[in-house]
Amino acid sequence: MIPRYARPEMTAIWDPSTKFRIWYEIEAHACDAQAALGVIPKENAEAVWKAKDVVFDVDRIDEIEAVTKHDVIAFLTHLAEHVGSDQARFVHQGMTSSDVLDTCLNVQLMRAADLLIADMDKLLAALKRRAFEHKDTVRIGRSHGIHAEPTTMGLTFARFYAEMERGRRRLVAAREEIATGAISGAVGTFANIDPSVEEHVCKQMGLKPETISTQVIPRDRHAMFFATLGVIASSIENVAIEIRHMQRTEVLEAEEFFSKGQKGSSAMPHKRNPVLTENLTGLARLVRMTVVPAMENVALWHERDISHSSVERGIAPDATVTLDFALNRLAGVIDKLVIYPENMLANMNKFKGLVMSQRVLLALTQAGVSREDAYRLVQRNAMKVWEQGKDFKEELLADAEVTAALSPAEIEEKFDLGYHTKHVDTLFKRVFGES
Amino acid sequence: MIPRYARPEMTAIWDPSTKFRIWYEIEAHACDAQAALGVIPKENAEAVWKAKDVVFDVDRIDEIEAVTKHDVIAFLTHLAEHVGSDQARFVHQGMTSSDVLDTCLNVQLMRAADLLIADMDKLLAALKRRAFEHKDTVRIGRSHGIHAEPTTMGLTFARFYAEMERGRRRLVAAREEIATGAISGAVGTFANIDPSVEEHVCKQMGLKPETISTQVIPRDRHAMFFATLGVIASSIENVAIEIRHMQRTEVLEAEEFFSKGQKGSSAMPHKRNPVLTENLTGLARLVRMTVVPAMENVALWHERDISHSSVERGIAPDATVTLDFALNRLAGVIDKLVIYPENMLANMNKFKGLVMSQRVLLALTQAGVSREDAYRLVQRNAMKVWEQGKDFKEELLADAEVTAALSPAEIEEKFDLGYHTKHVDTLFKRVFGES
Amino acid sequence: MIPRYARPEMTAIWDPSTKFRIWYEIEAHACDAQAALGVIPKENAEAVWKAKDVVFDVDRIDEIEAVTKHDVIAFLTHLAEHVGSDQARFVHQGMTSSDVLDTCLNVQLMRAADLLIADMDKLLAALKRRAFEHKDTVRIGRSHGIHAEPTTMGLTFARFYAEMERGRRRLVAAREEIATGAISGAVGTFANIDPSVEEHVCKQMGLKPETISTQVIPRDRHAMFFATLGVIASSIENVAIEIRHMQRTEVLEAEEFFSKGQKGSSAMPHKRNPVLTENLTGLARLVRMTVVPAMENVALWHERDISHSSVERGIAPDATVTLDFALNRLAGVIDKLVIYPENMLANMNKFKGLVMSQRVLLALTQAGVSREDAYRLVQRNAMKVWEQGKDFKEELLADAEVTAALSPAEIEEKFDLGYHTKHVDTLFKRVFGES
Amino acid sequence: MIPRYARPEMTAIWDPSTKFRIWYEIEAHACDAQAALGVIPKENAEAVWKAKDVVFDVDRIDEIEAVTKHDVIAFLTHLAEHVGSDQARFVHQGMTSSDVLDTCLNVQLMRAADLLIADMDKLLAALKRRAFEHKDTVRIGRSHGIHAEPTTMGLTFARFYAEMERGRRRLVAAREEIATGAISGAVGTFANIDPSVEEHVCKQMGLKPETISTQVIPRDRHAMFFATLGVIASSIENVAIEIRHMQRTEVLEAEEFFSKGQKGSSAMPHKRNPVLTENLTGLARLVRMTVVPAMENVALWHERDISHSSVERGIAPDATVTLDFALNRLAGVIDKLVIYPENMLANMNKFKGLVMSQRVLLALTQAGVSREDAYRLVQRNAMKVWEQGKDFKEELLADAEVTAALSPAEIEEKFDLGYHTKHVDTLFKRVFGES
Repeated sequence: MIPRYARPEMTAIWDPSTKFRIWYEIEAHACDAQAALGVIPKENAEAVWKAKDVVFDVDRIDEIEAVTKHDVIAFLTHLAEHVGSDQARFVHQGMTSSDVLDTCLNVQLMRAADLLIADMDKLLAALKRRAFEHKDTVRIGRSHGIHAEPTTMGLTFARFYAEMERGRRRLVAAREEIATGAISGAVGTFANIDPSVEEHVCKQMGLKPETISTQVIPRDRHAMFFATLGVIASSIENVAIEIRHMQRTEVLEAEEFFSKGQKGSSAMPHKRNPVLTENLTGLARLVRMTVVPAMENVALWHERDISHSSVERGIAPDATVTLDFALNRLAGVIDKLVIYPENMLANMNKFKGLVMSQRVLLALTQAGVSREDAYRLVQRNAMKVWEQGKDFKEELLADAEVTAALSPAEIEEKFDLGYHTKHVDTLFKRVFGES
Repeated sequence: MIPRYARPEMTAIWDPSTKFRIWYEIEAHACDAQAALGVIPKENAEAVWKAKDVVFDVDRIDEIEAVTKHDVIAFLTHLAEHVGSDQARFVHQGMTSSDVLDTCLNVQLMRAADLLIADMDKLLAALKRRAFEHKDTVRIGRSHGIHAEPTTMGLTFARFYAEMERGRRRLVAAREEIATGAISGAVGTFANIDPSVEEHVCKQMGLKPETISTQVIPRDRHAMFFATLGVIASSIENVAIEIRHMQRTEVLEAEEFFSKGQKGSSAMPHKRNPVLTENLTGLARLVRMTVVPAMENVALWHERDISHSSVERGIAPDATVTLDFALNRLAGVIDKLVIYPENMLANMNKFKGLVMSQRVLLALTQAGVSREDAYRLVQRNAMKVWEQGKDFKEELLADAEVTAALSPAEIEEKFDLGYHTKHVDTLFKRVFGES
Repeated sequence: MIPRYARPEMTAIWDPSTKFRIWYEIEAHACDAQAALGVIPKENAEAVWKAKDVVFDVDRIDEIEAVTKHDVIAFLTHLAEHVGSDQARFVHQGMTSSDVLDTCLNVQLMRAADLLIADMDKLLAALKRRAFEHKDTVRIGRSHGIHAEPTTMGLTFARFYAEMERGRRRLVAAREEIATGAISGAVGTFANIDPSVEEHVCKQMGLKPETISTQVIPRDRHAMFFATLGVIASSIENVAIEIRHMQRTEVLEAEEFFSKGQKGSSAMPHKRNPVLTENLTGLARLVRMTVVPAMENVALWHERDISHSSVERGIAPDATVTLDFALNRLAGVIDKLVIYPENMLANMNKFKGLVMSQRVLLALTQAGVSREDAYRLVQRNAMKVWEQGKDFKEELLADAEVTAALSPAEIEEKFDLGYHTKHVDTLFKRVFGES
Repeated sequence: MIPRYARPEMTAIWDPSTKFRIWYEIEAHACDAQAALGVIPKENAEAVWKAKDVVFDVDRIDEIEAVTKHDVIAFLTHLAEHVGSDQARFVHQGMTSSDVLDTCLNVQLMRAADLLIADMDKLLAALKRRAFEHKDTVRIGRSHGIHAEPTTMGLTFARFYAEMERGRRRLVAAREEIATGAISGAVGTFANIDPSVEEHVCKQMGLKPETISTQVIPRDRHAMFFATLGVIASSIENVAIEIRHMQRTEVLEAEEFFSKGQKGSSAMPHKRNPVLTENLTGLARLVRMTVVPAMENVALWHERDISHSSVERGIAPDATVTLDFALNRLAGVIDKLVIYPENMLANMNKFKGLVMSQRVLLALTQAGVSREDAYRLVQRNAMKVWEQGKDFKEELLADAEVTAALSPAEIEEKFDLGYHTKHVDTLFKRVFGES
């Protein structure tokens, strides 16, 4: 986790104090369930709730752990300092550390997912607003970085919206997958604890009981979770690259908002760099790099080994904090993106009329010219525009072989922009359900 | 794709002849739709179906491509050789190469997913059968590779079943995500082709129209697809590692089936190596390595660049072929796995009774001994078993501090195996819906 | 390995017939050494060389392997068919399959490295030639995609040269690391074979004896090899991205060579797409994806497991063939790159004079203006150029606060391009040792 | 960076205060060089050294950055608060932020490499000591987890030594690669600053001047650096897996040192888990995951974009801190590893004499039995040991076909352990240069 790329809402989830709070709740709910079963005395279960409002002392727990070299035992020892060691003696009974640790991790990941879903809603709202704002702002579509045919800025936002909405759906599925808990004992057999304890704790914590656990919750769930974050990060990169391209000096169709007083460069004061989207490109790599180790974590030895633990101490906060920050940053970038429609038009006309070549090709074919001949005719005129800066329409009008097939009016009609935007409404309806 | 790790069912999907067949179907269906709209003559659309039973000549198409340096144009040229160049002149009208290429790729991935789902069904059936067969076969559960508490072999199979069933669900979702097509033209605006053509082609090919495309179908879908394969491959590795561990000489709780005439080693004829599951460990890495490039493919420049294409030419066949092979190999390994229940018991009793230590710990606590004292009592007797090979139960019975809290009968009862298996039915019901 | 991205020189190294040839040489040299030690009869060693000119029958060996399920045994059985089973009976004595397999793999990787080094020499030659050709071709340097200060096209080629030369050095080191062989027996103890056999075989095959092996040659060597290929692939991507940017319609400072008859797009005949460098971007991902599995291969169980084998069957040919192809493709792209110096000048002057802002800033500071004030003065004039299309120099000359510090001649002097190119020679000397 | 897996020596390198200290030194040395050239007044250069002993106020710099949104400008502003804004006005002249940032990063990576090299020396010393200690401690070598032939514990340590020594050499090379600095201005042309400034600063900071930079130092150097760390991490995993295997209950040939008072499990007090080496397995994944993003960082746009920066803010401290911790942890594990030679012997004899099968096979062949027959004879006796627990030697002595070829004394001789250890000295000499 890099502080400068972190928001407090998400880092709070990973704060040790939050972890201890969740551990406490798991233990306390488990005591309730054990008391209901008659396994432990009701008064001991109730006594645990005395600590309900305690903010656990992270330093003190660390201090104990330095001796016991075991974090859960350290926490339980500290809890006994609040509840009274006699009253606390049934806490954790029949449970194993991982019952607490794994259930807690999934609570944290579930909450992180909730935040991320909210982030995506913010981003989706910004994309939708800008899409409708620029629904009819014509710009050139580009394949291979080369001018192709006209499209609109609204369609660009709309496709990012559609992509991010898919990301949101994946995130909802990943949240569902990760929202399980396990209180099943040393190797998951419930030998020392009744399954009803697991059911009670999970219900209280907003989780489902893990179908079958083995001290640990199976790590394929986590692999899927991080893989999902990796895909969303890649979509962020996709949007970021578009904006970076739009802001290049030669293109200049959009710029990230540039606040008063911000300095673009220590050396070149005129510069306005797309630093936010460049940063997002890097952040996407940081999120994505967590996917492979999460997958390597799946194959644990027998009922479990602990190799996954150090990995998750790193990637669980890192991936969620970074993605949360990135989604918020991107929402802000989209929201305030400065768009230059006039530059879009200027760019489109850089090679006069050339982007209409496909329409002419089609028209020639439909007028009876063979595909091969039509291709040749279009290409020879296109090359004059490309190489000598001629105007495509004028060249076509002056080409006898072309005018033998198409009348001047027909040629003229091929240069109508409306031809290219006629299905924008269709696409908006597909994406937004409205247009 | 490595021939020795490939099954013909899956490689057929990636054969050039299959690709050309799909291209053909896309073009022919598109002609039908164009004819229905009155854009092209009906007889030309019908003429295309003359090639319905043609097996396209891959070498001839390659030959043409060597000149045109464009694969779709090469195919269309070849198609015209069958249909007649005059009749074929409306084929592909208004379309762009990617309309064909991307729709085709998704058809292939969808079919690959169908095969993989069938593979998982085979694997699930094998796991279920072995789970019920060994539902009550007791073995020691291990955490950190160290004996923990008893479990059963059936539970091991059951948890692999649950994990693979999650994998199957994810695969169904990934198939759903990837089953889209696009016939939307040069930059996805439908400028040159009506959206109804896309709808018709997609319906005929078993796809949904892509919400919004940009010459290409957005690559977040593919990233999610490969990420899903990577998670499933990691689950395969998980099962493979378990079997490799079971087969180690010192453990020998199971062995891969060893056919007559098979030689384990050129040098050591007695050896029976878990080569299939070791192989699966490697294959898992090969599938997993495709995840990151699939994610790197998401951020294309503007409406598209073609950097993703070479990547997909590699990873699309590689990941699906390898995973298909691995799932089948694993199903076979599970199906024929030789299991040694007597060795499981022998291993469990290696340190006599020690695996029952937690039960004794709990009993002491419940008998009123403080947690710290109980821990100390258990540990001191456990250490004698560990270090001097003593029998745990006998040591406990001889420990005055222990017997002050627990009667001999109470101690005896703690060594009952049934205690550990009492919830096997519960877990089977969770996993299989029956027990 | 994707046939369309493969050159025969490299695929030949990975052909089964090459593998069997190398196996044969290893076995034959080992027999010589064994005979020299008196372990086996000289005539049997000599008899093996009868097969010196045999082209081994891959199909026949596959046929035998189908029965023995062991590739080395299958080969030895086939070899005996050539040498005579009685004469061949000392072949492979004291050796284990991996002695042959691992030594062979390293021979193949070493030869692959030799080809790659030759590829790099070709690429370096092209880069050097173009660097000197465009040593003084001024273009704008860009940071963040935004115009910064002038540089030259020659410097761009020179930095790619320097980067690729580092790549070449790394490749030489990786080749050195991988060029080891092992003939050390079942667990590497030389129990059944004398170390002098290993020494003899390695010398004959151009290898060094592995310091200490364990049936297998340690996989950290291979991990380093593939990591090195991954870094070089990333450098290829670096060059590719530059060219893709240069070719974008709005920039158009260079284009990949476009042969007569080549069609850029099935729909838009005017298009010239940087498809080669886009392809290289994808190929770089394919090479890079082999790095992580190669690293996952390092941690084998005890003296060896065979999980690495399937991985290497994939990545060893894939990474070397793809990189070989990519280096050759890139050398061709560089060699024939069409460069447009006039467009470079036009781009540089898009915002008239603005790229000289840093010089003016420095001049103001040196004339005694405080850094903060100088920054403010430059920025306010820069903004007029940026936003209103004014000419930077004219604005400065009209700004009283500026002219209070700098004379018109001094301002004029700041717009001299020679100022920016004065150290091109220095840099060429650093890179090429000449200028 | 995860605090619990971090050592203060390495985290200090990444502390903001260290960064500002290095920035300061770079700026101050640059001023000296500028003064020597006569570009700035000598007294201003000297004045900068007034801040020589200042511990820069990180909070204050952060505060300024919150306004300027530019870290280097914030630092320079703060530096001026110490030096006096008039005296400081020539600081940073002709330089660009990256001159400072990139040179600083490489200083940090170089220092990190120095620490890592020292770590490896510690690890190598521990491995060497344990290798000589257990040079003759016989244990069974295992391939595929299956008993193969005898080896010694000393050879295991020796091969880890050899692998780590290769790692050390790679690290020295990576340090050499990364130890460059650049003071070359906005796009690396030295337009605004003389190359001699770069030379002076680099020399003072222990660096070499970057051959050719472009505002940034080329990222292939960093990719190679992180790739090297990834390979070393994989070697750590290799050693860790060996120890985890040795500690499994059924094997128990070694255990991590278990300090008094340490609790293995909250539930099972008898457990001694290999938690340190399991942890190292996880840490290896964390280091390795930084390799791909480091490679993705290589392809920057034109002279630079800033996408690499956020990545490096994460991976530079993370990878070096984690690897430093891991190397130290591993050195400690090796140093204190508890080894059980008697268990090694017991394991080796689990299947009585079976591990000698290859010797018998060879002896039969040398006695004139055909390879196929010898194989059959050995395998049929081996199977009786494997399946019925018979003693291999006794079975051979009772097999008439065997004794027809080998005398009892010859059979007896094949079971001599010295046969397997006779080249231990040879291997020690190769690895350590002594035996």
